[in-house]
Formats: sequence, structure tokens, C-alpha cells
Amino acid sequence: MTADATDTDDLGLYEGLVTTRAIRRYRPEDIPEDDLNRLLFAATRAPSGHNRQPFRFVVVRRTPETAEIRAVLTRGFQEAWVPNRTEPADGDTSRPARMARTMSHFVDHIGEAPVLVFACLDHRVGGTGLAAGASVFPACQNLLLAAHALGYGGAMTNWHRLVTDELGALLGLPDEVSIAATIPLGRPVGGHGPVRRLPLPQLVYENRWDEPAPWAVDPPGTRYTGG
Amino acid sequence: MTADATDTDDLGLYEGLVTTRAIRRYRPEDIPEDDLNRLLFAATRAPSGHNRQPFRFVVVRRTPETAEIRAVLTRGFQEAWVPNRTEPADGDTSRPARMARTMSHFVDHIGEAPVLVFACLDHRVGGTGLAAGASVFPACQNLLLAAHALGYGGAMTNWHRLVTDELGALLGLPDEVSIAATIPLGRPVGGHGPVRRLPLPQLVYENRWDEPAPWAVDPPGTRYTGG
Repeated sequence: MTADATDTDDLGLYEGLVTTRAIRRYRPEDIPEDDLNRLLFAATRAPSGHNRQPFRFVVVRRTPETAEIRAVLTRGFQEAWVPNRTEPADGDTSRPARMARTMSHFVDHIGEAPVLVFACLDHRVGGTGLAAGASVFPACQNLLLAAHALGYGGAMTNWHRLVTDELGALLGLPDEVSIAATIPLGRPVGGHGPVRRLPLPQLVYENRWDEPAPWAVDPPGTRYTGG
Repeated sequence: MTADATDTDDLGLYEGLVTTRAIRRYRPEDIPEDDLNRLLFAATRAPSGHNRQPFRFVVVRRTPETAEIRAVLTRGFQEAWVPNRTEPADGDTSRPARMARTMSHFVDHIGEAPVLVFACLDHRVGGTGLAAGASVFPACQNLLLAAHALGYGGAMTNWHRLVTDELGALLGLPDEVSIAATIPLGRPVGGHGPVRRLPLPQLVYENRWDEPAPWAVDPPGTRYTGG
């Protein structure tokens, strides 16, 4: 990568890894093409099995010709969210209430996201099953991290799943190609920051399943899932 | 994350994403426990479906009690490499010859890697199939990127696959848990740097499969797969 790749990047690699959040609300600005190029370039630098690169990214912006793709996707997201949709009471500012509002807003407005990236896997090159994911999801994670680096944000979703066939037809996907993830991108409303996870001893073991590693401890100030 | 998380990190987030290579030769030094902690902490900050975190990392170091795990893994790696193993002529310094030597060294010495991380997926929480990979491979990518940030390197492999059952027994994995990737880590012999990939127009499309995005162009100096 040339030197100008870091011009806008004051954020350190390690710090970026531990502060990249799922961003589900976007400001209305478009993403300039230069930034799109850098985002997708970073995504495609990720590893894949045997470096065969079975990942392909179909990028959809807010143009008139993509209206149907966006409409179908919105319907798919909304249908997938139905079982979990709730209407928090006015004035309820609890975390569950805020998350419920964010998620409802997310699925209702997914079609207006500045950019939609359909991360696809070509099974003819990348195989099938869990292991095939090693050849597409690292690239998705690179894309989300690159978004953070350049002042954007996004979220990895599988919420296209109820409209997979319709989307496949609209995007012209060959039969042997799956959408592994739908990733909206845009300038965040709100921002990145520390994430909430299970306590590290529940996630990291040494030598044997369920045996916590004595050195695996959360740093001071870590916030936990459900807290 | 606390401020000291970035003490050793001069590398920018974006630059790190585009210069993290698979590292397959390691210097003999151990990885200090503080660094192991930071590496695994970063891995577990990755996203997962519904933030359910079905990923679990079993870390194996070079202690006497892990000798059998390392021996079984070495046998598995070597068996998986048999179909591709070649002996380049002395003095052949072509890229394929160098890669052949690196890979043979890698599988023959995998048991001596300073740290082996078995990235596991609990299917009871994370589901099955390709989509389940969205809940473990982003964490694996974070681990590899964090390694780069802290001066280490590693490689994502599926080469445990011929000894999965034996490893599962030695690691005490429940039946519903898979090893999604085996990731050795250590100080690199050689170093990180730009990676080789297919030309960007082959990987990034706009609106429709196989329609290159006019803005998706490789920056000057990009190196290509097979070049």
C-alpha cells in the first residue's frame, strides 16, 4: 500500500480492533468513490484458504437502478426482525429499549444506507460448510475495520436470508454463489468505542475445553454483555 | 480498552489491514502471558451473530503436558500436506520453490510453534453451515491482526482436519463443538508486508455479479497473486 493509505488514519491497529462496534444508524452522506475503493481494497487483503480468494463483493449504492434491490432487502430485513420487534414505552431509556429502537430503525431504513455490500462466496472455488467461511468472513471483518479506520461504520448481518433467492436473481448471482453477509456502510450516528462481551475466562481456555487460562483476564474498565 | 493498549502500537489500523501476511516461520521465543492476554482479548472483541459469542479459544503452549496434542497436530498437518509436497531443486529461488519450502517447514514444525490457538465454534449457540462462520472467523481475523499489532504473526489453517477426532478428544471438546481453525502464533522470521491478491476488478462488482465497479482500482505498486 502506498504511503497515502494512512493519511486519514490516526487510529492504531490494536486500538481499532478493540473499539470497532456494529454501526446501525448512518448519516445521510454518500461514501466517496475513493473511500469505497480503499474500503474494498482492505477487505480483499484478508486471507482465504490457499489464497484462492473465493470472496466477491457486490456493492450497491443509492441509485435509481438499485431501487428494487433495496426494496427487496428492506422487506427481508423487516420480516426477519418481526419475531423480535417490540415497541418500548416512551421514556424507557434502558439498554434493551434503546437496542430495540435501534434495531427497528435499522431494518426499516436498511434500504437507505449509503452503501450496501453483499459479501459473496463462490462455492466452486471456496467449498462449502463452516470451513468455507474462513475464506469470506475475514474479508468481511477487514471491511468493517477499514470502515472504522476511514471514519465509517457498518454491521455484519445475515438478515437477507428470507429474500436470498430474490436478491440472487436481482444481483445476477450464479447458482453456486451464496451471499455470506450483507454489510451496510455509512458515516455513523454515534460512534465506535469499547464493545461488550462475555468475561474473557468464559471465552479463552488453556489446554482443554472449559479450563480458563490464568492469564486471560479482562483489562480494567471492560464492559460485559448484558451488563 | 485502557490507554496502555496502544503502547506498542505504532501501526495504523488501515495500514495494518493491508499489510498483515500469513506468517509460517517463527522465532523460538515464547509469547509472554501479558501479550497472550491482549491477543485473545482483541480476538474476542469481534462481532458474532446476535452477539452470542459462540467462539471459544483453546490455547496450547509448549509445555510437557501438551506434547501429545502437538504430536497429533503435526501428524495431521503433514498428512494434509502430502498431496502437495514437493522438493524444489537446490538453488531454485523461484516463488513456487520458496513457497514449497516454507510450507514443508511449516507442517513439519507446527508442533514447535510458540503458541497454538484452536478457534472453536459451539454449534449449540452459533448454529451450523456457512453462516455460522460469521460468528468465529471475524474473531480469528482479529487475532491475526492483533498479532501483527504486537509484533507477532500467525496463519489461519484448516489443516487439523485429518486429526479432528483425536484433537477433539485430547482437548476435551464437547460433541457439538468444532475446531473452526488452527492458528499458530509466534515472532515472525521475516515479516509482514503487502499481500498478493487478484486484481481488484475481479473481486469487486457494482450492482450485479461480474460487473466491475469503475472506482475499484488497485493502488500503484499492488502485487498480484501468481505474479
